[in-house]
Amino acid sequence: MTFNVPNMAKLPGAVRDLIVSYHELNSTTIDELHEEPSPLEFMRYVARNRPFVVRKGAESWTARKVWNAKYLVDVMGRQLVNVAVTPHGNADSVIELEDDGLLFVKPYDTEEPFNKVLEKIQEKERQGIDGPGPTRYAQTQNDNLRNEYMPLFSDLPKDIPFARIALEKSPDAINLWLGNSCSITALHKDNYENIYVQVLGEKHFTLLPPIECACVNEQLIPAATYQPREPATPESPRSPSAASDNSMSSSQVRPAMTHDEVLDDLVVCLDEPEENVPFATWDPDVPSQRATPFSQYSRAMRVTLNEGDMLYLPALWYHKVAQSASSEGICCAVNYWYDVEFSGSFWPLCSLARGVGLLTLGRDPRDGEEDDG
Amino acid sequence: MTFNVPNMAKLPGAVRDLIVSYHELNSTTIDELHEEPSPLEFMRYVARNRPFVVRKGAESWTARKVWNAKYLVDVMGRQLVNVAVTPHGNADSVIELEDDGLLFVKPYDTEEPFNKVLEKIQEKERQGIDGPGPTRYAQTQNDNLRNEYMPLFSDLPKDIPFARIALEKSPDAINLWLGNSCSITALHKDNYENIYVQVLGEKHFTLLPPIECACVNEQLIPAATYQPREPATPESPRSPSAASDNSMSSSQVRPAMTHDEVLDDLVVCLDEPEENVPFATWDPDVPSQRATPFSQYSRAMRVTLNEGDMLYLPALWYHKVAQSASSEGICCAVNYWYDVEFSGSFWPLCSLARGVGLLTLGRDPRDGEEDDG
Ligand SMILES: O=C(O)CCC(=O)C(=O)O
Ligand SMILES: O=C(O)CCC(=O)C(=O)O
Repeated sequence: MTFNVPNMAKLPGAVRDLIVSYHELNSTTIDELHEEPSPLEFMRYVARNRPFVVRKGAESWTARKVWNAKYLVDVMGRQLVNVAVTPHGNADSVIELEDDGLLFVKPYDTEEPFNKVLEKIQEKERQGIDGPGPTRYAQTQNDNLRNEYMPLFSDLPKDIPFARIALEKSPDAINLWLGNSCSITALHKDNYENIYVQVLGEKHFTLLPPIECACVNEQLIPAATYQPREPATPESPRSPSAASDNSMSSSQVRPAMTHDEVLDDLVVCLDEPEENVPFATWDPDVPSQRATPFSQYSRAMRVTLNEGDMLYLPALWYHKVAQSASSEGICCAVNYWYDVEFSGSFWPLCSLARGVGLLTLGRDPRDGEEDDG
Repeated sequence: MTFNVPNMAKLPGAVRDLIVSYHELNSTTIDELHEEPSPLEFMRYVARNRPFVVRKGAESWTARKVWNAKYLVDVMGRQLVNVAVTPHGNADSVIELEDDGLLFVKPYDTEEPFNKVLEKIQEKERQGIDGPGPTRYAQTQNDNLRNEYMPLFSDLPKDIPFARIALEKSPDAINLWLGNSCSITALHKDNYENIYVQVLGEKHFTLLPPIECACVNEQLIPAATYQPREPATPESPRSPSAASDNSMSSSQVRPAMTHDEVLDDLVVCLDEPEENVPFATWDPDVPSQRATPFSQYSRAMRVTLNEGDMLYLPALWYHKVAQSASSEGICCAVNYWYDVEFSGSFWPLCSLARGVGLLTLGRDPRDGEEDDG
């Protein structure tokens, strides 16, 4: 196709109109319900792709009644669980290098006994983000409640009836999130209708609708992972830098570092093979940094979930999540992910909005796709 | 805002992707139900903005049981009703002038006694589109069933329960459509969720989803109206052309034309003041004419409504409608229009798709808007 395109200069206006007209037609205050919606009421929200919170919507759940630090340890004991470890509580986030380059850095994923994870989360909460030691966040989004946390799953409903009935689907994943106020989940979006329930502590959500994709400055950035500078096990070979350390004879062997010492010294390593991932680089809480010409039109919706509150976080909404710990020093939530509906017009229209936003910013929406042909 | 836009050449690809990916994710065969949906089932269709037909969904309506030509005349009698009159059955349609220019031509609207309208519709059906006389179509879309056709409204439900409950709205308009096979409604879209019920005869719908806006070649074209060449009443002054006719002395008065004679000679008159209206100029049944580079990706959905069938025609879908008359020579339908939901993301995203489609075709989506500032 060849096109005569005299009006292309008007494209940014079309993108701006999308954002501005959306906010003229929609409130930035979240709807607050005081009991669960019916499937039909829920479907009306899904149809409009609009969030709501049900205050105390999960107050009667067994988890709300019986979960506390001691109970969780009693049930899970020393069972090994996955935990994301980061120096600054920044799992899956953007970091800016000294030369202004950006990296998308993933946490160091390790396994530890549950009782230790919980204790370390509490200890870190007491000492604060500037205290010693890394930040732990149990946040594997891999249906962990029906796998490693199965013993806790019996305190939770198998699904969310209003969502199951409305969407005619079972949840694709049910996840436990266990951390403290040192962790922040960076702004991102998921292909899921998300029912998020706060059990202990508080979560502070910052929400942007999918039509704001031109605001969030999505960029393709190199992926990296936090890695221990030193391997943990005594058996493993010394790292090259240590092996060439002239102050030690080759027969001398430094005492191996403990697992905890290793986690104290995480460094960012570029993934190999190199991979670029598309990620939102704008932070609505630092709006002047890495803004696009459209970020000024963004209108964030902010909501705090208290214990027992339930949030419907619609598919493709950008969300940034901060947390406050309970008096026991932990923050614990669960969520139910239902696959987004790909039929109908929502998915292709959101792809158009993303594509047009990126083109207007001088980028190619297809960069980074598997099939780039 | 100023932009560096090196990737603008990729914009047509984004528009094509929208259309192609929509059709990859959605069928072009309409869903067929055999009983009315529940409000929740209906809401799932509304959420996806997808049509369905309920075969025989209105079979038990009183109108289905008692309406026929004689009954309609018995109830409505000689009551004056609005009727759209056209030479070729083309109310609200695009006509192409000899110089390739386009006009959007509206019917001549007049009032006639109902019994005469019905008789003329039947007569025209017998003689066919090439027979003598104009085509009549009672098609005022102004809630006519709760106004001039009130006597017939008692044979119809006051609203469509599944739609009222799901949408939490009463119908904005309830319309009667009475015509014959000589009338075709040209491709257009409405800001309504539409429940359309066929009572007598058949309707043949050609449907295009809203994301196909770049296919339908929307253009701003001058509005015109069919007008009688001669005024109908003897009292009214002669038209200027007749008055200057030298073959008659000024004292001679031609016998006034009858109302029917006047309607036999309708001519297209440009509206004054001049007005341009945005209208789809592509016809999916004549795909090579007035196509855009995107029309080739269009996938029309076609469905015939038989007597008693009910169609959900979702908001903003383009529809072209042809008809077949019953054995009595009439085609009669009713529809319930519910306002489209402006909150949520559907409306602004459809506006984006329209705007981007028009920009890609070198047009300005704001042309023709009241407030062009
Ligand atoms: O709770 C969090 O830290 C993040 C939650 C999240 O991203 C999600 O539920 O999709
Ligand atoms: O029945 C027709 O001729 C047209 C119907 C229509 O355009 C509508 O229901 O919106």
